[in-house]
Order: sequence, then structure tokens, then C-alpha cells
Amino acid sequence: MRNNPITPTIDFDKDGIQHGFLRLPYSRDDSAWGAVMIPVTQFKHGDGPTALMTGGNHGDEYEGPIALYNFANRTDIENFQGRVIVIPAMNFPAFQQATRVSPVDKLNLNRIFPGRPDGSLTEVIADYFSRTLVPMADYVLDIHSGGKTLDFVPFAASHILDDKQQQNACEAAAKAFGAPYYLQMLEIDAAGLYDTLVEESGKVFVTTELGGGGTTYPHTVDIARRGVDNFLIHAGILKGEPRLPDTEAINLDMPDFRSFIFSEHAGLVEPCVAMGDIVREGEVIARIHSIERTSSTAPAEYLAPRDGMVICRHVPSLIKIGDCLNVIAEVV
Amino acid sequence: MRNNPITPTIDFDKDGIQHGFLRLPYSRDDSAWGAVMIPVTQFKHGDGPTALMTGGNHGDEYEGPIALYNFANRTDIENFQGRVIVIPAMNFPAFQQATRVSPVDKLNLNRIFPGRPDGSLTEVIADYFSRTLVPMADYVLDIHSGGKTLDFVPFAASHILDDKQQQNACEAAAKAFGAPYYLQMLEIDAAGLYDTLVEESGKVFVTTELGGGGTTYPHTVDIARRGVDNFLIHAGILKGEPRLPDTEAINLDMPDFRSFIFSEHAGLVEPCVAMGDIVREGEVIARIHSIERTSSTAPAEYLAPRDGMVICRHVPSLIKIGDCLNVIAEVV
Amino acid sequence: MRNNPITPTIDFDKDGIQHGFLRLPYSRDDSAWGAVMIPVTQFKHGDGPTALMTGGNHGDEYEGPIALYNFANRTDIENFQGRVIVIPAMNFPAFQQATRVSPVDKLNLNRIFPGRPDGSLTEVIADYFSRTLVPMADYVLDIHSGGKTLDFVPFAASHILDDKQQQNACEAAAKAFGAPYYLQMLEIDAAGLYDTLVEESGKVFVTTELGGGGTTYPHTVDIARRGVDNFLIHAGILKGEPRLPDTEAINLDMPDFRSFIFSEHAGLVEPCVAMGDIVREGEVIARIHSIERTSSTAPAEYLAPRDGMVICRHVPSLIKIGDCLNVIAEVV
Amino acid sequence: MRNNPITPTIDFDKDGIQHGFLRLPYSRDDSAWGAVMIPVTQFKHGDGPTALMTGGNHGDEYEGPIALYNFANRTDIENFQGRVIVIPAMNFPAFQQATRVSPVDKLNLNRIFPGRPDGSLTEVIADYFSRTLVPMADYVLDIHSGGKTLDFVPFAASHILDDKQQQNACEAAAKAFGAPYYLQMLEIDAAGLYDTLVEESGKVFVTTELGGGGTTYPHTVDIARRGVDNFLIHAGILKGEPRLPDTEAINLDMPDFRSFIFSEHAGLVEPCVAMGDIVREGEVIARIHSIERTSSTAPAEYLAPRDGMVICRHVPSLIKIGDCLNVIAEVV
Amino acid sequence: MRNNPITPTIDFDKDGIQHGFLRLPYSRDDSAWGAVMIPVTQFKHGDGPTALMTGGNHGDEYEGPIALYNFANRTDIENFQGRVIVIPAMNFPAFQQATRVSPVDKLNLNRIFPGRPDGSLTEVIADYFSRTLVPMADYVLDIHSGGKTLDFVPFAASHILDDKQQQNACEAAAKAFGAPYYLQMLEIDAAGLYDTLVEESGKVFVTTELGGGGTTYPHTVDIARRGVDNFLIHAGILKGEPRLPDTEAINLDMPDFRSFIFSEHAGLVEPCVAMGDIVREGEVIARIHSIERTSSTAPAEYLAPRDGMVICRHVPSLIKIGDCLNVIAEVV
Amino acid sequence: MRNNPITPTIDFDKDGIQHGFLRLPYSRDDSAWGAVMIPVTQFKHGDGPTALMTGGNHGDEYEGPIALYNFANRTDIENFQGRVIVIPAMNFPAFQQATRVSPVDKLNLNRIFPGRPDGSLTEVIADYFSRTLVPMADYVLDIHSGGKTLDFVPFAASHILDDKQQQNACEAAAKAFGAPYYLQMLEIDAAGLYDTLVEESGKVFVTTELGGGGTTYPHTVDIARRGVDNFLIHAGILKGEPRLPDTEAINLDMPDFRSFIFSEHAGLVEPCVAMGDIVREGEVIARIHSIERTSSTAPAEYLAPRDGMVICRHVPSLIKIGDCLNVIAEVV
Repeated sequence: MRNNPITPTIDFDKDGIQHGFLRLPYSRDDSAWGAVMIPVTQFKHGDGPTALMTGGNHGDEYEGPIALYNFANRTDIENFQGRVIVIPAMNFPAFQQATRVSPVDKLNLNRIFPGRPDGSLTEVIADYFSRTLVPMADYVLDIHSGGKTLDFVPFAASHILDDKQQQNACEAAAKAFGAPYYLQMLEIDAAGLYDTLVEESGKVFVTTELGGGGTTYPHTVDIARRGVDNFLIHAGILKGEPRLPDTEAINLDMPDFRSFIFSEHAGLVEPCVAMGDIVREGEVIARIHSIERTSSTAPAEYLAPRDGMVICRHVPSLIKIGDCLNVIAEVV
Repeated sequence: MRNNPITPTIDFDKDGIQHGFLRLPYSRDDSAWGAVMIPVTQFKHGDGPTALMTGGNHGDEYEGPIALYNFANRTDIENFQGRVIVIPAMNFPAFQQATRVSPVDKLNLNRIFPGRPDGSLTEVIADYFSRTLVPMADYVLDIHSGGKTLDFVPFAASHILDDKQQQNACEAAAKAFGAPYYLQMLEIDAAGLYDTLVEESGKVFVTTELGGGGTTYPHTVDIARRGVDNFLIHAGILKGEPRLPDTEAINLDMPDFRSFIFSEHAGLVEPCVAMGDIVREGEVIARIHSIERTSSTAPAEYLAPRDGMVICRHVPSLIKIGDCLNVIAEVV
Repeated sequence: MRNNPITPTIDFDKDGIQHGFLRLPYSRDDSAWGAVMIPVTQFKHGDGPTALMTGGNHGDEYEGPIALYNFANRTDIENFQGRVIVIPAMNFPAFQQATRVSPVDKLNLNRIFPGRPDGSLTEVIADYFSRTLVPMADYVLDIHSGGKTLDFVPFAASHILDDKQQQNACEAAAKAFGAPYYLQMLEIDAAGLYDTLVEESGKVFVTTELGGGGTTYPHTVDIARRGVDNFLIHAGILKGEPRLPDTEAINLDMPDFRSFIFSEHAGLVEPCVAMGDIVREGEVIARIHSIERTSSTAPAEYLAPRDGMVICRHVPSLIKIGDCLNVIAEVV
Repeated sequence: MRNNPITPTIDFDKDGIQHGFLRLPYSRDDSAWGAVMIPVTQFKHGDGPTALMTGGNHGDEYEGPIALYNFANRTDIENFQGRVIVIPAMNFPAFQQATRVSPVDKLNLNRIFPGRPDGSLTEVIADYFSRTLVPMADYVLDIHSGGKTLDFVPFAASHILDDKQQQNACEAAAKAFGAPYYLQMLEIDAAGLYDTLVEESGKVFVTTELGGGGTTYPHTVDIARRGVDNFLIHAGILKGEPRLPDTEAINLDMPDFRSFIFSEHAGLVEPCVAMGDIVREGEVIARIHSIERTSSTAPAEYLAPRDGMVICRHVPSLIKIGDCLNVIAEVV
Repeated sequence: MRNNPITPTIDFDKDGIQHGFLRLPYSRDDSAWGAVMIPVTQFKHGDGPTALMTGGNHGDEYEGPIALYNFANRTDIENFQGRVIVIPAMNFPAFQQATRVSPVDKLNLNRIFPGRPDGSLTEVIADYFSRTLVPMADYVLDIHSGGKTLDFVPFAASHILDDKQQQNACEAAAKAFGAPYYLQMLEIDAAGLYDTLVEESGKVFVTTELGGGGTTYPHTVDIARRGVDNFLIHAGILKGEPRLPDTEAINLDMPDFRSFIFSEHAGLVEPCVAMGDIVREGEVIARIHSIERTSSTAPAEYLAPRDGMVICRHVPSLIKIGDCLNVIAEVV
Repeated sequence: MRNNPITPTIDFDKDGIQHGFLRLPYSRDDSAWGAVMIPVTQFKHGDGPTALMTGGNHGDEYEGPIALYNFANRTDIENFQGRVIVIPAMNFPAFQQATRVSPVDKLNLNRIFPGRPDGSLTEVIADYFSRTLVPMADYVLDIHSGGKTLDFVPFAASHILDDKQQQNACEAAAKAFGAPYYLQMLEIDAAGLYDTLVEESGKVFVTTELGGGGTTYPHTVDIARRGVDNFLIHAGILKGEPRLPDTEAINLDMPDFRSFIFSEHAGLVEPCVAMGDIVREGEVIARIHSIERTSSTAPAEYLAPRDGMVICRHVPSLIKIGDCLNVIAEVV
């Protein structure tokens, strides 16, 4: 297989704090010999495991980048024991444009792993993670939020894995992250996920959803910032005491597809339940108004298909046929 | 002055409930003899004043349209005494595209009043309100929210006017609307506002800001829905008892330009204070990280220029130089 | 008033056949000192009146340009007695892009007369016709068709004018054009039309609609080609015998707005009557299917609002709310 | 091979009439968990063969969708004996935008069969037909027209196949469709066609070209509507008598590439022959005028390369180098 | 007249070096309360005249901005006697996008003076110069180059003015600038130019053309950097000795329109003369090849319409009908 | 492997001069049966080798196309001995749009060899060269320049190859081309290059870089025009004497990656060294100014990483992070 064209401007084997770029050549109309320059910072000090921490897998999710740009400001290398590779914005072209998928090739980075070294831009980035960065890591944290069009209650998550020892290690790390909610996920279709690539490489992997709507709040940023520290403390790479939420985390489960409500109408969403509400099957959760005309016709009503907690909502007030309206999870 | 080219498909003099359109001819490449069709509903029953209620002055603000599409579903004409003209989406082309300004001529409807009958699309809409609809009304309610890029604490507002009798009538109507906050505004530059056009016509006028971010929540929708009823009950057009919030409204004031904090940095916003927080002058309200590179350089810090309550925030996590970061109001 | 920035590369006072351009400076990103170059041909021979013949007033109408590019190929200057100015594509930027309105400023040339010398590109073109070309002419022919989105039965038309002598001269010229249909029009809103500008200048003016759909047929091209000759023969500028259709022209009238049927539904048009069909009030003329879903719900039916002949249809099979579906004229 | 991500919202094994969608997840910037929802209706009653009927393989062809949206309105399930799957718009994203190829990935659905389950949107649609829908069918009808840029005389067609029994069955079904013209086609390059996929699966397959120009006429809609019924009656699935044209169908043949005339000039097309005209080799069929300038230079003339009937024309009056100008078929 | 909405973040009356912005509110879809922030620096020290120095009047011209961003780096306030206002990029939105005209309203800043306070973005910028900045100045320097599509030999210029004393002052200042060429211009159509606005205000005004092609060279940057200093030394505001070119400046004249050669062909330009070449009337200066096809037809040849020096060339190798191909000046 | 869909309109086996097209079918929204028509000319006379000469591999490089469109004008077939295939614009869709990469599929033709017959447009073009044109040739010349964003000193080049006999033949041909500079290249990553495809086919191959910036100069055009002749004379196909530059060619070498300087700052480039300058390691070669604000902060300085000659520069004055700023070569 062809070499990946990315070259880092830092030396992963060197001790200390290094700031630089992953340089990915990108020849195009406005720059014959141009490049995508993905920021990267490494902390390396003493012997210890390697953690790889990322945000911006989708370019419109912000708690992760804020926590990681902050983390890169650290100068206290003496508090580290091992190596931490920080990439606040994996899909940097999408992050720069504030878009979910790459503005260049329209690919969703989190559906194309393991990628290809001779593919389009996003595929090349995936390949560099698959064949260069992930193999260097013992612990991998990928911070997601809902993006511009979805909003989640803040949770860290781990997956049900065949290797129960690995599963337990992941679950422990996810709980150590210290979000208000914890979710154990059974992915129905894990093909192409970064999660799957990392887990199949035998790493301790944690993912999150920490809010959404293309914005952040002080409390969701705080969850991300302390979660990053907690994760590294748990991994034994960072010195310090974990900082946990005041109340115990709530455990969630999405056992089947009835958790997902998709709209079959286009129009204006009137939400009838709020995030975190407990609903009963058959309760009205939203009404969708046709915007074409005013009339005496009532809007379409959507009913909860199950009991549970509303953990996700559609953010834009205009919805299209096929969009996810809400997700309802079981509280364990 | 030339006639306005808009023709309504309903008869404003007719009793009963009518649903129809304001038909604005719009010749363009994909329809030589096409039109913009702005939905309108009228309730007319018995003798009484006329109320004109609008949303979608900016196309990405949703509490107003939801309340008004719902209102148009009513069939209880016997509860009305007078006339109510309901236009849920004034700038309908913007509303359809979920944009603040018109996608056709890029104009901000709320800065071009009184408009022109021979101007571009948005100017023609403004002229139809200025010369046809507003003159028909006694009470005018225009429901705003922050749109996709701003978010406000929910308030109704009236302006300081030269005619103190009119000012008192407006203030009473704004308070009757029943939002959690009330703001008395002194507009520094009122040129081009719908508000100014309506007030100069001598009408009782109420405006609002009820949330933002291009989305809504059950509690903000509820403020709008009950506010619409409360406004009409106050005007004596609708029968019923007003439905008010449980706690007394908080009164706000923005006495000078120090209330507005504008960003002089482009980058990733880390919010340090939440909406409704009381801050002290000099307190850090936000940090802005450059996204180009990770480094040990600290982000730019923005400090509160005055004591007060955070009543507005920039929604997108990426900010540009010149964007409004926050607004801090005085609590009266 | 400022001088119009257009300079012709031909000399309107010179005898003979000249081919050139109307040169309109147009500074833009891809050409700092660029220009729009509108093709023009002039035939001048002996003494006689001046005719101005145009097509491409809307850029997606083609019978006129085909007839006039052909006419410009003529080399028989000896058959002329007077002057003929031929501009096959008035709104040349639109014609080049095959669009109805100008791709530069999105203006509909035929709604902005008399134009402005310091306006945007289309306004400058209008001003050049208003202040330079039309004043030079005695006879003016402007050939229209329906464009990409409308289709008409082929007719020549003249307007009802205050000056009955001028009206009769126009009617005679329109009938001399020799189209299968003749329409006498009373424009409800004549503001901004080229027609109005020309007629108010006291010229003999003929307009046409010769087909549409962004295409042509041999028989519609033939109507235009012989119509151009017939018009000039009628004006006494060209030698020869007029070539008329085999059957007598049908006279049409559109006495009021009930002739126009506008769609209040978006969807897929199923036409139920053909162009030239005679319909009775209440007859189904079209059905509009919602495309969002298949269902057992019948499509919306549109009924003829009057008796008459179907003289215009909406061409694209997908229709939007507000589009013109059909026009039904009275046969006189 | 990976599972196709499409899930139908109807149950293909259930009796009765069902309306629903083929739900294809489509994560994108404006909807993280969005979907393409392709309308589908199924009629199932008693024992009998399965017919799969489609339109909108290209998104700008309309006789098929009109006939099939109408067909889906039927409520007379008792007239069916077997199963009919109706998909009026195969390439639904293209159909919604009125484009030939998909607006998402710019792919021509009819050149990429059998598709891929992990490809781009159009490839996934093709795969769902190849591996799920076509295997369920015995009879397959795919209704085409010329689209916005081509126009055909209305014909049904079948291909020359290696399996002569299958070929005869297809020809019989095509003739049973009842269009004014029948064409037996020998595809030179059948790679990627839906036709080829279906025929290689051993199904009875009929295709059509029923008009074009991005519009329809009452008589072409009528051919499609009765053709759909005729096809199902022929298949023994629908009760009733076939409704055939008044005159016998004309048989056509395109024996070699001399039937296709491609333009080597860009400009304005002046058509010299009409659809259905019989032409002789060497006859002028079109003239192409350069639009850049008017001049005494004659336009380029295109001559018929063979005797035959004009069965296809280029619709837009502006043509580019390389566009198909006309097709001339032999009348058998 | 309405107040201009721009507010400076610096105080023009304050001594010392200040860096800031001209803040122009700009409400749009991606920022409801956003702004254009035009960088500005002021040096003020002691008593003396005021100089206003600008670049980026067109956004794709770079010698001026480079010289002025450099100038703003100065910290030697003690060398100043008076006030210098430095705005490296007048049309900042165009400069950011590397376009000649504004990407917002497509206006050419240098054709719309004096502007309007209630116009579109570029008109508001013009108005701020006309009514606020220019009145503060005694000496005004506006540095131009040819932009992406034109290229000039480097010259400073002054205009022929009615006020001969002012004309002499301008000529002296232009010659003091110290470019290799000096041009005395008689503008045929000066309407809308910044030059005209400034000169009519009675100021000493110098303009330049220093290269082009959207790029710079060390020697053209050097002309601009030393020219800025020379200009201020000449004005008595800056201490120091002027730095002049090694050879005496060449004086140029463009007496009439025969100096401008416009293309009447679209295609590929083959330049036959170089910048600075002396040509004779009738000499081949360029050949234009049609790119549509290769053939034995020779390209169109363009001949010099006069004797003189080639002082301007069309940069892009593809040319359009109407583009300026070359300018030929007389050497005085 | 599937047949390539391109069909030439000329016969490569026929003697004489033929002008025609490579016809590549391209079905798209604006032409269902359209095509890309790539101009091609062939000279064939007597027995002799075949030369394939191309330009426009990147669509914004012009010395090659100018030389080859000129070459195609020749009518002196008697001066040829063998066959010359001339394709002035390999990536014709890019050349028409003046873009480096294809406007259709955004592919860089020179990175995707050998291409695919069933791929996207650019891949199909590559495949036609790989499997049809290159196999016909003995000598292959591909003329490049720097394009819109890079600028090179004019050189011809050959590669270091495993087959030393072939290497010597290529070097001799490159030197025979007669450019002012000659470069012997060791490609680090030759995957996907046309060069590699041709060399691996055993042909005598020469490439060039003759300028750049999206424009040409008389002297760079002259290098290309005489180079084409010189190349064919060297190959023994064309009669005549080579025309060489007045001074001996300078030999260049780029031994390692230190030759390439990439920008890590976005902003305005101030070039400090000119093309062809000899620089010393550590010398300032450019300064990059941030454009967001004026300030007393000095711009970023870039230093020469090695001694050598500046042979390449970034053309646009605005630079992005990751763009190539300069190339410094060793003079042998």
C-alpha cells in the first residue's frame, strides 16, 4: 500500500512540548502546491502510555476543540508521565468552515475508516489515523457533540465488545471521564466508524456526545475540560485528582430502533417535550406545521413510541422529511 | 406613487375566518410569471379594533411563526370581537430558506421601512405593510427572537416615544404580553425599523426577543403562544383570561453602548458566563482561541465592560472579527 | 443626466451594411477593463424611415434572435430604402447564459425602462435604447416568445393607446407581421415596459409571443423570419411581397384577470388541456400531484375559470405555488 | 458484501395497498441524521406475478412520474392479482431538483448499475434495486422521456437479447404497452444500464421514451397512463381491457452510428426539420448561428447523414460543441 | 443626510500611535449583529499637516497594502510632524477575498464616490471617506496597481485640474513619490472616482499604478515603500531624505482613445510585444487563437493603432470579447 | 477492461494534415447526450517516428497551448517525415475554464495516471492517453508552466531513470528543446504522473516549466514555440535547423526537500528576493503580514533554508498556511 502523503512537522519520538502541523499536500485551483495543515501538539515526558485525544471529527462540534485547544496551552510538562497527542480538529477543513462533513469531498470522516492513502482528502486523513496515529496510542478519546443539527444530553460512552476485558477497560475509562450521563452502546452498523477502527486495534476507547446546536455553554465546556484531565489521570499519564460532577451519573440505554423518531413531514417543528424529560409511550413529543399556507388544519403530531428520557432533539426549527426528530433512551 | 404590486387572495372587509396569500408577482429565470405567496389568515367578527400580528420579520426566528401558525388553526370565531390579521412569516422568502435576510435581494426587512413599491422584493413587502396593512391596524405585535447567530433571554419590549400617552399604551401592552422579562428601549438609530414605521403611525406596538439559535424550546414556544392570546385579550379583541408567568417579570435597561461587546478576534469562542448570569465589570466573560495552530499562547480574554445581566450571547462557536459576543443589561 | 457609457463600433449615419457592437464597459473581478459587447448590424440605403428590430429582450426566447441573426446575413443592400438597425439580443448577457433575466444584476430588462445611465448593467442598456436608439427609429419591432417556463400560441400584438391614429398604425403593422394569431392588449400595469417607452415616443410598435419552452420549431422560426420581412415591407423599407400564413389570423382578447390561472400548490403538473384547445368554464385543465409521497389522496384539480382558448401553458412539469399555470383567452 | 443501508417503511410481503418510503440515511451538513425518503406504493392481492414500475430514473423526465403518482392513487385492490411495486421517482433527489443526474453526487443513475452498498447516494440506490427490488419482480417497466435537453417521438422499446425466448417476451410486453412507436434496440454499450441489469436477471423488461423537453402534453401523459395499465393487463396482474392507440404503431430501427448527428459548433440552433419528418440524405436539417457577432457570414449547415425519420431533437436553442443535434431512425 | 454608521475604534484627535478599526455594522445571515472591521493606524505628533494614505481601493492590488502594513509597523513617532492616517485596504471585504470589486455588493469602490450613508456596504465606505476622512486631510495618496487582470509599468500620476495651483502641487507631489514613470492624466469620465472627490475637496492628491497581475515583485514593492516615505517627506510630515530611483523618471501621456486596444475576439492571447516596448503603428502586438478547435486557420492579429510605449497588458492568457488587450502611451 | 469511451474524429493511420476532436461522451443536466470535444491535429507524412506533443495538462498553463495551437496552423506537410499528434489542451474542460484541475470532477489530471475507462471525466482522459495515444508514440513532449499560483524560471527537464539508455535519450531531447535552464529531476513521489506513465512505456519523454502566473510573455512564448520545433528536429521528424538561445543553458538540481519553503502563516506576502536571484542560507526571502489588523508587530520573516537560486515563487500576494512560498535550487 502506498505511503500516506501526510508529513508531521513535529517529531513524535521527541520529549517535551511540541506544537506543529500534520501537513497534507492538496493541489487545487487556488494553490498548485498547497496543503491542509492540521494543528497537532504533543506532550512527552518520562515513561508511560500514549493517549491520543481528538475533537472535530465532525467539523461543527465544539466542546472537544475548546477543551483541546486549551489543553495545548499547558506548559507543565513535569505533570506528564508518558505521551499525549492532541489534535483538536481531526477534520480540519470541515472545522474551518464550521461544517459537519468535509467541504472538499463532502465525506463524513466518521463513516470512512480505515480510509485510503490515495483517496480524496478525508480518506487520506482517515488513513493517517488508521496506520500512523492510532497504532502509537494506548488510550484514545474522541470528543463529539451533536453538531449544528442535533443536540444531546452530555454523555460519555463505551461499546459492547467481544473482548470483555477491553470492554471493561473502555467502560471504566468512559465513567472516569466524568460526564453527567453514561451510555453503553451496541452499534447496529459500526462499519466505517473511527470507534470501530480504534477498538479493533485493541485500544482503550472513549467517545462522547456533550451538547450540540453548533454552540457551547459554560457547563458543557466544563464537562469537556475536566473530562480530558480525568481521562488522562485515569490512564496514569497526568498527575492530579479527577474532578467529578456533583451528582452521580445517570446510565442510559438505547436497546432498539424504536428509540429513534424520524420525521415524515417537512415543516416547522413545535417541540412539546424538552431535553431530559421523561416521556410515556403515546405522549405528544412534537407537532410539525406545514409552512406553505395558514389554515384550520391541525399540524401533524408525533407521539413517543416508547417510555424513556428525551436525550436528543432536532435543532433547526425547519425539518425535512427523513430528519431525526428526537431520540428517547431508557434510563437504566 | 406607484401601486404596490401585491394582491391579497382574501378580502379584508369580509367577516369570518379566511386563509389565503399575499400574492407578490416575481418574474425570474425559473418562472416568467411566478409569484411569492405569503400566507395570511384573517379572523373578523363583530365590531372591535384590528390587530396585526407578525413573525418572520427575520427568516430564522421561530417562536413567532410557531405561535401564529397555531393561532391560524383556530376555528372559534365566536370568541373574537374585531379583526385579527395573522402573517406568521413577513419575509416569507427568507423564512422558507431559514435565513435572516432575504435570499433574493439580501436585504434585512427590518432596516428598509417604509420600503418602495417599485424596489426589489423585500422593499415591496415593506411598502405593502407601510401603506396597506399597518394603516388598517390599531394594535401591532411583531414577534422576534435572536435568529441563528444570537440568543436572548425572553423579553417583550416597548420604546420611549415622544407621545407619552402612546408610550404608556405600548408599555401596558408589552407587559400584558406576559414574557419573563420586560425591556424599555431607547433606540439609538431607529431609521428603517418596522417598529418606527408602526409607532409613527400612532399604533400600539409591541416587539419581543424570545430566544434564538435558530431553534425553540417548549418554554419559549409557550411564552409566544400565551403572549399572542394575552396581547389580544389586552386589546379587547379576544375573550378570555390572560395566562401569566408564575414569577414577576424582570425589568431590563440598556442605557448605553457599553452594553455591547464586539469581538476583535476571529476564532473559537469559549463562553465563561451563561445567559441570565449577573456579572461584575472586569470579570472574564469569554475566551477566543485562534484555530490556526495549537500553541502555548493563551487565548484572548474578554472582560465585562460593566456590571449587569448577560441577556444575549453569540451562538456559533466560531466567531469573526466584528461579531457581537455578548450584551450585558442593567437590571432595573 | 450623465452620458450613457455605451459606445457603438458602427456609425449610424453611414450608408451600407455595417456589423459591429454596442460596447458597454463592465469592470469586474475577471476583467478590470472589460466590456459587454452587444452585436448590432445596420443596413442603410437611400432615403426612408428607420426600423429598429430586436430580440432577446428576455434572454431565453429564441424565435427573434434566429430571425435577426439570419436577417443580418443579408448582403442585398439594394433592396433597402431607409435604415434598419438589427439587435438580435438586447439583453446580451442574459442571452449568452440562456436566462430570462440578466445574470449580472438579476434585472428583467422589460420592467425597468427607461433605465439609468449610472445604474447597473441592465439599467444602462435600457437607457441606451431609451435615449439613443428608439429616438432614431420610426418603426420598432420587439420579438418575444414565452421563454423557458411559458409557452404561447404564436401571436403578434398591439396595444390600446390614447392616440388612436398611432393605435391604428400599430395594429396595421402587427397584422402585417403575419402571425397566426393577433392580440389587442390593454396592459393593466405598463410601468417599466419597453413597449410603453416606445409607444410614448410616438413610434409604430409591434410586439409578439411566438412560442416558448426555451426552444423553437421550424414553423415558429418561419413565422418570425417572414414576419421580420413583412414588417419592413409594410414600413416601406424593404422591397418585396409579404408572405402570409395560409389561413386567416385568429383574433384574441384577454379582457380581465380571470384569464390567468395561478397555482396555489407545489408539485407535478398533469396537463389536461392542450395549447389552442377551446375550454368551458369549470372544465378540469390540470391536476397537480404532491411529489413528497405516493398516496390514495387525489391530486389538486384546477378548473377553467372562464370559457375560451388555452393560449399559454406552464412549461416545466414541476410547478411552485404562485406560478402561472395557464392563460385562457377569448376568441374574438 | 455489506448490507444496503436502505430500509423500506412498508412490508413487501403484506397484502393490500401500502404507501411509504424507501429510507436511505444521508448524513450531511444540514442534517446529521437525515435521510432521502423515496416514495413507494405497493398493491398486493391474491396470487400472481410481481411487476416493478418506475419513473424518474433521470430526474427531469415526467410522463412516467405522472402516470405512476396517478396509479398510486388507485384504491381498487380487488382488480389486482399479484403484486405491483410502484416507484414514481427512482432517483428522487434528482427528481426533486428537476435535474437529470443526482444533485448530490452528479451521477447518472442509469450508467452505474449494479451500484454499490458503500458508494455514494446514487450508487446505493442502484444497489438496492439490483439486490432487493429487481429480484422480487417478474415484469419490470422503466418509463423514460427525453428530459430537458432532448425530445423523442413516443416509443416503447425492447432489446435484442441472447435468450430469444426472453427477447420475445420483452418485445410482446413492449408492444402491449401501446405507444405510437415501437423500437427494437441493439445497445452498443450496455454497461451500467438498469436495462442490462434487469435483463440479465431474466426479467421481462420494457423501456420507453415518451417525449421530453422537461414538460409533458396531454397526449404523452395519456400514452404513459394507458401504457402502465396495458403493461399490467398484459402481465396478467390487472383486470381489464388494454386501451390502444387509434393507428397502428410504427416500427423504428437505429442500425448504426450514422443515426446520431452531433454538433461541432456552438451557437444558436435553427431547426430545419420537425420531429417525425421523413428526411433524405444530404437535406439540411439544421443551421447553427454563432451568437458572438452579427455578420454576413452564413451559419453552419448540418445535413442529414442518412434517409429516415427525425425521432429526436436537441431542445435548448443554444447548443454546445459535442451535443446531440438530432437522431434519424429507419422506419421498418 | 443620515449619519454614516461607521465608528472608529481610535481617536483621530489623540497624539501618538494608535492601531484600530473602522467598524461598519453589517447584519447578515451568518452574523445578525456583525461588522466589517477595516484596519486603520494613525501617527500623530506635533503640529503639521495631515496625510491620508490608502491602498486596496481595488482589493486585488498589492504594492499599496504591503507598503502601508509595513508603514504601520513603525514605532518612531518622534520622526513625525503632523498626522498620518494609514488605511492599507480601503475596500477591506474585497481585499480579504482577493477580488477587485466588493464580494458583498459587487460594487467597484472607485466608481461610486461620494457614496451614500444608507446604501450598500461599499457605498457606506465611500461616504465615510467623503464626509469624514478626506476633510481631515491635506495630502492624499492612493496607491493602485493593475490588479489580477491588468499589468502596468510603474508610474505615479496627477490630473489636469482647473485650479492650476492645485494642479502644480499635485504634480510636484506625484513626482516626489519617485516612481520610474510619471503620467499626467486628463480623465475623460471622472464621475465616481475617489480621485475626483479628493481633488474637488482641494487636497493635494497623488495616485499610482505600480504593477499588477495580482502579485508583486521586490522592485515594485520597493517603489511603493520608498514612495510612501518620499510623499510624506515632501509634505513635511516625515523627517528624512527622499530615496529616488537611479534613473530619471520617464514622462508619459495618453492623449486620446486610440491608446486603448480592446479585443473583439475570445480566445488564447499570444503576446507579441512586451511591457515597455516601443511599437510603431501597424506592428503586430498580439495574436488571439480560438481554443475551440485546432485548424490551419491563422489566429486573429491585433495591430498597434499608434506609435508609442506598451504601458499596460491583459494578464490572463484567455481573453474575452471586450477586454482591454493593451494600452500604448506616448513618451513625452 | 472496458473500452475507453473516447472516439477520435480523425483517423490516426491516414496521411496528411487532419484537424478534429477526441469525442468523450458526457451526459449531464444541461446535455443528456453531450460530449467533451478535445481538439487534436495530426501531421503524417512519409515514414518516421511518432511524436505526441501536449499542453494543458493543467488548465491554467499557457506557453504550451500557444505553441501548439500555432503549430497546428502549419500547412507545410512536406517538411514532416513521420507523424506528429498535437493536443494543445489535454485537460480541455479545465483549459476552457482556466482552472488547474478539472471543473467537473476536481481531479488533477497529472496525479491520476494511468486512469480508468469507467471513472470520472478526467480519469477517462488519462486512460485514453495511457492505452491509446502514448502507445502510438516514440517521442513525447508535455509542456507545463507554473499555472496561476506558481511561477518558474523557464526550464526543460528529464528524470533519473533506471534504464540509463532511456535516461540519456530523454536528457538529450530535453537539452535539444533549448530552454534557458535544464533540470535533472529525481521525483520523490512519481505515483500518478503522466511522466511516469510515459517513461515506463519506454518513450523518450521531455517535460518543461516555462513561466506561470496564468499569463505569458513574448520571451516565454518564444521558448515554447522554438522548443516544439527543436524537439521535432531532434527526433528527426521535422526538417530544419534548431533555434537555440543566445546564452548557454544553466543546469539546475533540487537534491532534497530543503529546496521547498512552505508558509506556516496566512497573510500578505512581501517578496524579498526575485526569480533567478542567488541567495545564501539564512537570508530573508519573504515577509508575511497578517491582514486582519495594522499594528507595530513585525511581519513573519522567512529565511532561505539553503544556498541556491530562487527558481519558483508563489504568485498570489495573499498566501495561505501550507502554500509553497519559494523553491531554491542548486546551480550545477
